[in-house]
Parts: sequence; C-alpha cells; structure tokens
Amino acid sequence: MRDGSVLPEGSVLQRERELAALPVYRRSDFSVLTDLYQLTMMYGYFKSGRMNKRVVFDLFYRVNPCGNGYVLAAGLEQAVMYLRGLRFEEDQLEYLRSLGIFDEPFLEELSRFHFSGTLYAVPEGCVVFPQEPVLRLEGRVFELQLIESALLCFVNHQSLIATKAARMVEATRVVALADDQPISEFGLRRAQNVDAALFGARAAFIGGCASTSNVAAGKYFGIPVSGTQAHSWVQSFPTELEAFRAYANAFPDNAVLLVDTYNVLRSGLPNAITVARELRAQGRELRGIRIDSGDLAYLSKAARRQLDAAGFSQTRIIASDDLDEHTIRDLILQGAPIDAWGVGTALVTAKDCPALGGVYKLSAELEDGRFAPRIKVSENPAKVTNPGKKKWVRFYVDGWANADLIMLDDQPTPHGEPVVLFDPIHTYKRKTLVEYSVREMLVPIIVDGELVYELPTLDAIRTFARAELAAIPPETRRALNPHTYHVDLSEELWALKQQMVQAVVP
Amino acid sequence: MRDGSVLPEGSVLQRERELAALPVYRRSDFSVLTDLYQLTMMYGYFKSGRMNKRVVFDLFYRVNPCGNGYVLAAGLEQAVMYLRGLRFEEDQLEYLRSLGIFDEPFLEELSRFHFSGTLYAVPEGCVVFPQEPVLRLEGRVFELQLIESALLCFVNHQSLIATKAARMVEATRVVALADDQPISEFGLRRAQNVDAALFGARAAFIGGCASTSNVAAGKYFGIPVSGTQAHSWVQSFPTELEAFRAYANAFPDNAVLLVDTYNVLRSGLPNAITVARELRAQGRELRGIRIDSGDLAYLSKAARRQLDAAGFSQTRIIASDDLDEHTIRDLILQGAPIDAWGVGTALVTAKDCPALGGVYKLSAELEDGRFAPRIKVSENPAKVTNPGKKKWVRFYVDGWANADLIMLDDQPTPHGEPVVLFDPIHTYKRKTLVEYSVREMLVPIIVDGELVYELPTLDAIRTFARAELAAIPPETRRALNPHTYHVDLSEELWALKQQMVQAVVP
Repeated sequence: MRDGSVLPEGSVLQRERELAALPVYRRSDFSVLTDLYQLTMMYGYFKSGRMNKRVVFDLFYRVNPCGNGYVLAAGLEQAVMYLRGLRFEEDQLEYLRSLGIFDEPFLEELSRFHFSGTLYAVPEGCVVFPQEPVLRLEGRVFELQLIESALLCFVNHQSLIATKAARMVEATRVVALADDQPISEFGLRRAQNVDAALFGARAAFIGGCASTSNVAAGKYFGIPVSGTQAHSWVQSFPTELEAFRAYANAFPDNAVLLVDTYNVLRSGLPNAITVARELRAQGRELRGIRIDSGDLAYLSKAARRQLDAAGFSQTRIIASDDLDEHTIRDLILQGAPIDAWGVGTALVTAKDCPALGGVYKLSAELEDGRFAPRIKVSENPAKVTNPGKKKWVRFYVDGWANADLIMLDDQPTPHGEPVVLFDPIHTYKRKTLVEYSVREMLVPIIVDGELVYELPTLDAIRTFARAELAAIPPETRRALNPHTYHVDLSEELWALKQQMVQAVVP
Repeated sequence: MRDGSVLPEGSVLQRERELAALPVYRRSDFSVLTDLYQLTMMYGYFKSGRMNKRVVFDLFYRVNPCGNGYVLAAGLEQAVMYLRGLRFEEDQLEYLRSLGIFDEPFLEELSRFHFSGTLYAVPEGCVVFPQEPVLRLEGRVFELQLIESALLCFVNHQSLIATKAARMVEATRVVALADDQPISEFGLRRAQNVDAALFGARAAFIGGCASTSNVAAGKYFGIPVSGTQAHSWVQSFPTELEAFRAYANAFPDNAVLLVDTYNVLRSGLPNAITVARELRAQGRELRGIRIDSGDLAYLSKAARRQLDAAGFSQTRIIASDDLDEHTIRDLILQGAPIDAWGVGTALVTAKDCPALGGVYKLSAELEDGRFAPRIKVSENPAKVTNPGKKKWVRFYVDGWANADLIMLDDQPTPHGEPVVLFDPIHTYKRKTLVEYSVREMLVPIIVDGELVYELPTLDAIRTFARAELAAIPPETRRALNPHTYHVDLSEELWALKQQMVQAVVP
C-alpha cells in the first residue's frame, strides 16, 4: 500500500486504502498465518537454490458442498488485502528465530519479502464448478508456497457460506417465479469465532441475504443490520404487554415484537395487537411480529388470521428457530404466511457441510522461458490435477450458462466458430455449440505485485452474484440432486493430461 | 487495562497486560461485535429507566455436542480480555449514529460504557455438563445485555473444539491403559476464517493436541508448531529422491518425508530409506515418514516392515488424510503402527457437529435488595431454565467425579454430611453420598469490573484439562453412547423451579 500521496477517488488504490482501514484487514502477523510446512519448504527452496523458480498454482475445489450444484465464489477481497499487506516484521522474525530451525540468511530473506507475483481470479459472486481455477497464482515458488494456507482459508470459508446462503434464498423462491424473501443472518453467537461471524455475514450477504444481526459486520462491510428484542427483554418486565409497550415506545416506527415468550396465540398475539392499536392511534404501524419457537406453519397461519382480523394485514410475520434451506422450503410449501426469515447456526457454520475442500495445486513451472506443465497423479482419479497454465471460459446459449471449458492459457479463445465439447471422463458424451457467446472467467487482479483491479463494493458484488445465479439453469440451481453442469477440458488439455498420466503410471 | 505503572511480575494485571498485546485480543470494535437487538434492547432499557437494574445471567448449554458425554470448557481468556477492553469510541458511536435509530443521550451513555459487572466462571479446561453455568454474570442489565452475543461466540466455539480434540485424543487411547499418541492440528486451510484457525488451534491444544501446523497460533499462544513438506515440494524436483535429499539437507535432524506423492511402497518408502541411510552415514537419523492417502492401515503396516527390515525402527510413521476420532480408533484397532496423527477439517470445524448451542439466560433480578429468581418456561421441557442466582459443586468419590449438584447461591455447600441426590426429571432415582469430597466449580474472575483472577498459561490450562478428564469415569468419557453423568438440582432449587413453572402455566 502506498502512503502520503493523494489518490484520485474511485481509483484502484483509493479503494484499497479504504479497505485497508478495516480492522479485519489491518491485522499484523498475517505473514505467519500459514502452516509451518510452507516455511520449512521455503527454507528448503532457499537452501537448495530454487527459491526464484517461477511457478503456477491453481486454487480450485473438487466437490460441490452440501449436495449443491455449484459454488458461489467469495473471499477474493480478503485474499487481495492479505497478499498486498504481506510483510515479515521483526516481531514475526523473532518468533521464527525462536523455533531454532531456520538460519539467519533465510530470516533476512524473509525480512525483504513482499508479494511480487500475479493473481488472476474470478470476481467474487461468480458461480464456479469443480476443477475450475477460482484463483490462479503465478510467481516465485518462494512466495507462492507461503500463501497457500491463508488463501485457502479465506476462499474456502467465504465461498462456503455464500453458497449456503444462496441455497437458502433459493428455497424462499420455491413457488415458481416468486420473488425471494428477505433472510437475515443471525449467527454471531454460534459462529466459529469472530472472523467466522464477520466474514460469514459478508459472504451470506453476497449469497443473497438481506441483512445481518451482527453490528460489527454492518459497520465494516456496510451490510444492513436488523434485530429487535430477545426473550430476556420480555421476561424483564412484569408483563408481556408492558414489555411490548416499552419497546414500541422506544422504536415507534420500527417495532417487531417477539411473541413467543409465554404463549404465541393466547398471549403474544393479543398483546401485540393491543400495542398495534395503540401505535395506530398515534398514526403509526406495528412493523412485525417474530415467532421463534413452536410449529412455525401452524403458528404463522393462526397469527396471520388474528392480525388480519384485527385489521393489521400489513404487519409482517418473521420466523426464526434453527431454520435451514429445507425447513424454509417446507414451511413455504405448507403455505406458512411468513414474510421474512432469521437464520443462525445452519447458515453461519454451514452446519451440514462446514468445510469446502478447496485445494491449491502446482500446475506449471517455468523452464527455458516457457511454462512446463506439472501434474499430481493420485490413486483416486478425481484427485488427478489438470496440468499446465490454464484459463477457462463460459459459453452462454440463449442467455443461459450452457457449459464451461478449461483450456491451456495459450490456446485461442473460441469466438463464433462451432465448438465441440466432450465429457473429460465419458468422452463419448459430446455436444456442439454453434450459436453462443463466450466469457473469459479469470481476470487479472494483481500483476507483478501491483493491484490492477478495482475491488467492487459489497453491494456491487451482491448484485453481480444475483445476475450470475440468474443465468444458471434452475436444474443446476436446485438444492436437491441438481443437474451436473458441463465442465469440459479442451482437446489439447485433455490430450496433455492423458499423456502426462501415462508417463507417470507406466 | 492500566497503563504506565510498573506491575509486579506474575500479578493478575501483569498477565492481563501480556495477553492484551496479542493482536487477537487487541482488536478495536469489539463493542459493536454484538447482535443489533442487544443494542435496541439497551436503548429500550435506557428509555424506560431500567438500564441500571441489577440482574444475573447464566451461560450454559443444553445438549452435549457430537454425541459426547461432556464438554471441555474453553474460551474464558477470550471472554475476559473482551470484557476488560470493552469501550465505545467515536468510530463505533459514529456508526451507530448513522443507523438513525438511537438518540444522542443514549450514544453519550455508551461513550461512558465499561464493564463494571461481576463474572464467576469455571476455569478453562473444566469438564462441564448440560445445564451447568459455565459463566455466571451479575451486573447492570444495560451491560449484561450487550455482551451476550460475543461471550456465546467465544465460549461456544472454543469449548466445541476443545471437546472435539479431547474425543480424538481419547480415541488414541483405545487400547486400554495405552498412553495417548500425539495429534497435531492441521486445519488452517479448512477453518472458518482466521480466528477459527487461531482459537481452534488453542482450543485443540487445551483438549490434548500436542501441536499445531498454524504458525500464528504458535506465535500467539505458545503452542508447539509442527510440519514438514507438501506434495508440491516433491513434485517440484525432477525426482522424489532429489526432493527428499534436498529436504533432509535443509533439516538433517528433523526430517519427516511425505512418501505418498507417487507410490508409497514402491517409490516413497525405498527413497526415504535411501535418505535415512545417507543421514545415518552422517551420524543422523531420519525422524519420520508421513502417509497422507491410501489405506492407512495397510500402508502403515507395510511401511513399518520395510523400515524395520532396513534397520530404521526408530523412524516414526505419521498419518493424515481426513482423519477423525472414528478413523483413528479403527486404525489403532486394526493394529496400524502409526505413531502420530495429523488432523485437519474434522477437528478445526468439528465437522459432524460444528456448533455448540450454548445459551445465555436471565436467572435473577435484584428486587428490594435481594435477587428474585426469574425463569423462562418453554413448550419444550428441556428449555425451561433453572431460576435464581446459582452455584454448583462436584462431588468426588474415591478420586472420581461422581455427581454434580446445582444449588441456589445462598445455600450452604455440603461438606461431609450425607447428601441425598435425586434426578430432577425422574425424581424416584436417588442416591446418597456419604464419603465424598466436594469442589465449588464457579470461581470469581472479575468482581465489580476488577480482574481478580490470574489467567493461567496455556500449558497450565492443558495440564489442568488433562487432570480434569482423568477424574471423569471412562464410561462418561467414551465417544460412543457415553454414560450420562449425574447433574442434580438441590431440593430448594428444584422446589423453586416447580413452583415458578406452576405459577406461569396455570
């Protein structure tokens, strides 16, 4: 990051500087946020004279999480802020020295460390599929090894939560063509510590959530914050009615009353309606009620009837209570008249699938001026990597994403000519695209250490993600047994891979 | 925190100051790390003249995670550092002002905020059971409401991971009376962002892990760090043998070679043995090999035979590859001669149970100079809270933890007289303790805002946890269908609860 100079507003560096002010990005010690083996390998490269070897690594994942049909990529902003801020200061070097396994010339080399490599990536909010590089790094092996662990941590986590949120938003659209309903992320208390709550709220917003209860996430990322009262509020007054009145008095234009502390239908609703009448007498309207326990289908229907009968058909019903995409979908299918949802644990931890298994694999090494492909062969065919420095494109037909193609970086991108795609495993499965548009998916973010990409605002990322998802066929978007989207390898890449596999496995 | 004065070494405040230097504890903005509804309720208390009402909250959980028989409490240090550092500075107030829902007198009140309440808690590393207060807070409702979300986040997360780690360490003791084997926490890349990795490594160490791969966690918390090389190291050399030689050259006394990049038995092991011979010729020993894929039982047995036959019976075998407590146990039962374990995703995310459902409930309010009990009654009997300001004790018989008793705080603690315990649900289940020792579980940590507890070192916490676990009967410690430990209510508390439930539910 530069300092001192006056930066034009809206410039790449101006935006970076704004983000760098966030405490979540301003943390020191990120240089040691790595697995020890990255440092021992760096030391090994240093000692064996190989540290400046230029290499390419791909960051990708192999299996969609939660039975989903895609992943919504997120975490790039965090990755960029990390890469741009990476330094070893005396404090970190002192700790590494104390381990007694590194020599002084190596520590001195670290003291000069900064990220001078090149990063291509899909923008945050892109829909991606297994095997597709989400990030492609190019640079000195010495640098690219250090950053593996942190990059995976950021991208795995945020992509996972963005994907989980998108599943939940999709669930609210269960009645065909319906608008999605607002979901608020409520997970702070069950999150896997502070950053999981903060970046989880950010990722959930990218995935389509409307707001978060987490005030710090609102402050840092500009996410709308929402929230009303807890059972303890209601309990701390002599009666529920007094608790409701006191709350409506403090927030006359924005009161949502929690109606299930004692009994939803016999106590909470009648008291809420009393307060709604009192508010209306002042020319105000009760904004909503929240139900946090019991059978949400039964209670929401009965509550809607009571509210409507009393003349409060604009008062919204908000539901929470260990919801996930399945319960949301089932409640809507049962006709529960719920207007908005609060989701905690299942979203912030991605409870049924709490890790995305992204990996970071060497794909090429510079030899005699060109990138020679590298492959990792495994007993498990799904773990054999795609060799070479690669790019990938998405074909659109009639406005829908139709298939993706992973290619070698030096192959020309198709534009207009018929394209024959074939399944990389079951090669007899072929299709030819004639009328299509094509999009290059990896865009330059950092080139030789310089930031060349203007990091979008979070609102822009969310809008982009929404458009991305809208172009994915509903069959691939659905939560249960989604249709597998076509991700093919170019003939050249496929042939290279076959040849390299056969060379390794005689 | 005090500044400027010279603090005696080893004092409560000296230790606090050391911890306050850690970037993970030095973060600003913790005052807005809360759910919005805490702030709207604080505003409501402020507007209705109730903000100084003195109340008691209990933090406890209701169900053991992962089918376990207990929880290993952790997160207190983070909770204390948070409470002691809580301030609203202009930056946070400015954000709250921008929401447009609070008035200036409230924001001014926040600018004077500090935690002036009292915290009792079980020390980190204590074994706790459902319903037992892990933290008990007493103070102004205005303060106690704010802190709910963050305290739950810290304690839920660290207790969960400590418990998961303890399950895994227990699994290595599957052969009766065996020593536990070292487990290294490897989860940074799959953790739910940075703090999950850092505090996850800390909690895993409390739970019995021997080390972490996470260098930043090592730096902050003094956890031993471990790690060697990745497949990319081996791939980046023309041959596996050259890769092993280069590594052994960099770390002649501490080399662990990853033997599964190509083929464990036909390539990795023979090459490792070659390097082991070369090291021995220099008077050094190969420390170990690591196997990260394939059938770990078959491969570890074959590897052990090859190593022994070549005269390297001291070379250790380390296994990793999506391990959890079940695979560790099964591998040991199958006789896999594995000496140490690396565990990633399953530990750092507690994959099959990624959230501990701790809650924070109002239990009493000061009225006319004494704490009047409060209860939360629910349709779900398990969710009815225990009313009143409480303490709890553990009874030991023959050195084993035998039963716990939750009591009202003003009841005398039994010491020596026969104690009749009865099950709070199935009250016909009774037992009488005659020969026992008794331990008060909640200890004072912060009194009227002042720290009165010396936060132990992490090594001390780990040692304490080990002793705690050793006193829990093996039947309760086992991973599968553990015996339910007895947690009873005192007769006074039980009667109070019945009476209050009946008053609410006519």
